[in-house]
Amino acid sequence: MDTISSFAELTAHLKSINSRKRMAVANAVDSHTLDAVLRAVEMGLIEAFLIGDVASIESPELFEHHLSAHIHIIDIPDVQEATIEAVRMVKSGEADILMKGLVNTDVLLRAILDKEKGILPAGNVLTYNAAMEVPKYHKLIFFSDPVVIPSPNLVQRTAMIKYAIATAYKFGIAKPKVALIHATEVANPKIHYMQDYLDIMQMWRNGEFGDVIMDGPLDIFLALDKERGSIKNVPTPVLGDADILIFPNFECANTFYKGLSLFADAEMGGLLQGTEKPVVLTSRSESIDSKFYSIAMACVLA
Amino acid sequence: MDTISSFAELTAHLKSINSRKRMAVANAVDSHTLDAVLRAVEMGLIEAFLIGDVASIESPELFEHHLSAHIHIIDIPDVQEATIEAVRMVKSGEADILMKGLVNTDVLLRAILDKEKGILPAGNVLTYNAAMEVPKYHKLIFFSDPVVIPSPNLVQRTAMIKYAIATAYKFGIAKPKVALIHATEVANPKIHYMQDYLDIMQMWRNGEFGDVIMDGPLDIFLALDKERGSIKNVPTPVLGDADILIFPNFECANTFYKGLSLFADAEMGGLLQGTEKPVVLTSRSESIDSKFYSIAMACVLA
Repeated sequence: MDTISSFAELTAHLKSINSRKRMAVANAVDSHTLDAVLRAVEMGLIEAFLIGDVASIESPELFEHHLSAHIHIIDIPDVQEATIEAVRMVKSGEADILMKGLVNTDVLLRAILDKEKGILPAGNVLTYNAAMEVPKYHKLIFFSDPVVIPSPNLVQRTAMIKYAIATAYKFGIAKPKVALIHATEVANPKIHYMQDYLDIMQMWRNGEFGDVIMDGPLDIFLALDKERGSIKNVPTPVLGDADILIFPNFECANTFYKGLSLFADAEMGGLLQGTEKPVVLTSRSESIDSKFYSIAMACVLA
Repeated sequence: MDTISSFAELTAHLKSINSRKRMAVANAVDSHTLDAVLRAVEMGLIEAFLIGDVASIESPELFEHHLSAHIHIIDIPDVQEATIEAVRMVKSGEADILMKGLVNTDVLLRAILDKEKGILPAGNVLTYNAAMEVPKYHKLIFFSDPVVIPSPNLVQRTAMIKYAIATAYKFGIAKPKVALIHATEVANPKIHYMQDYLDIMQMWRNGEFGDVIMDGPLDIFLALDKERGSIKNVPTPVLGDADILIFPNFECANTFYKGLSLFADAEMGGLLQGTEKPVVLTSRSESIDSKFYSIAMACVLA
């Protein structure tokens, strides 16, 4: 498999393998979600199960142009019940991917985390792994975690890194380069997450993360820019070529991608990780493209 | 005075007032620093005192084209002594601005923080306030603190905000809009800096920050983008029009500006704040433009 370096290559790859994944969407009634789902159906990426309050669909006219054998509408007006049904389909194997429509994140998370009917195996860390395409960078940037874990502990950080690496492998990246992000490359022991970084580097040296290159702490210049990084004269095997950025906390990852999204034409896709099956959970303020790329990422991982 | 909305307007404003500030530079021997200093001299912004190891100047040929009555070279080969002399000039009133050349930041900070000979008044908070020009945003973004205080406490945060507001006033912004940045607009009490944000909002309501608009927690979309912010349906007087971003910690501010610097053509200027006089302290990996804009900011504040 060739390396996937952009969302266009991701879409092309999925079209070429021509194998629809079955996706259950909880309350797909807002037009952003519907647009993205219908695009994915049209491109042959998914078969969609739209479970929710059919009467409140924002743009029913969309279906007139898109109705196909690959769209199944299941009318469950109560949003919480619809969400539980979507999770059930994924758990039972009737669907490969779960997606959040117009549902409060709390409601979806409660259904996912339910000990009996949920889809988070005991002991797994629930986190978020995203991919970003920045026109001025030469490949996709995977990063974690912009939204779920505010201030990860060592176990959570380790899990975040492992999920990100597994995702990069699925994108055909043979030896991903992982950067543990900080404001500088100096391992100041007063910084509360620095011991985690040192421990993780030691785990990497011990081979616990498999065939990857890792370095940290590194700042954004060292991780993503050869020229500026070189000026700093810090020897690092990641220099300007990182595939994966592990951020110290969620506000850091969050402001980073939102800034690039607004001002650098960055496109995003992202998934909940740690669950039995991939979960597409984008916020209402994300673009249709962003939702579509998230679905495409899920198809690679499902 | 008109509002200054870009670095070009800042430079034009300084040229128009035609009043040179005296700047003492500690070991201005690297070509990036020299280039920026000489540009500021040529434009009539400053009179420069270059204090340091003359023999190690990287590009002596620069002077052939630039030597003027407004450049004074003081040969002190010992970098630490040169730094102490530069700080002395500022403290004694012989200079209005201090600038770091090729000196370890530690050495400069030690000279600044010296109880007797330094320039940080007792009780003042030493922090960093920067301005960023992002082509896709409609005005300058002031933000704090990307480099000095890793995890500010309430006293430090309050000082950071007051310095940033004072700077915005000097740029002719009548009623600056301040955003307290977080990953979302939800004031989750489990986030360790959230109580600071709530306290600061209460202080603002009590009028402690003067004639400003403030809101927080806000995410980057709400702070900087009307369209994406509106989708979120969160009523905020800052919506998409922030002048000042207060970041929760320095890694967050740092990764934010470095990302935009690499991928959104953002230009930066910045100053140490809390000192008796403005201090230009840029790292070696910053561009010449960045160093020049920092000097220009210092001229407005001196």
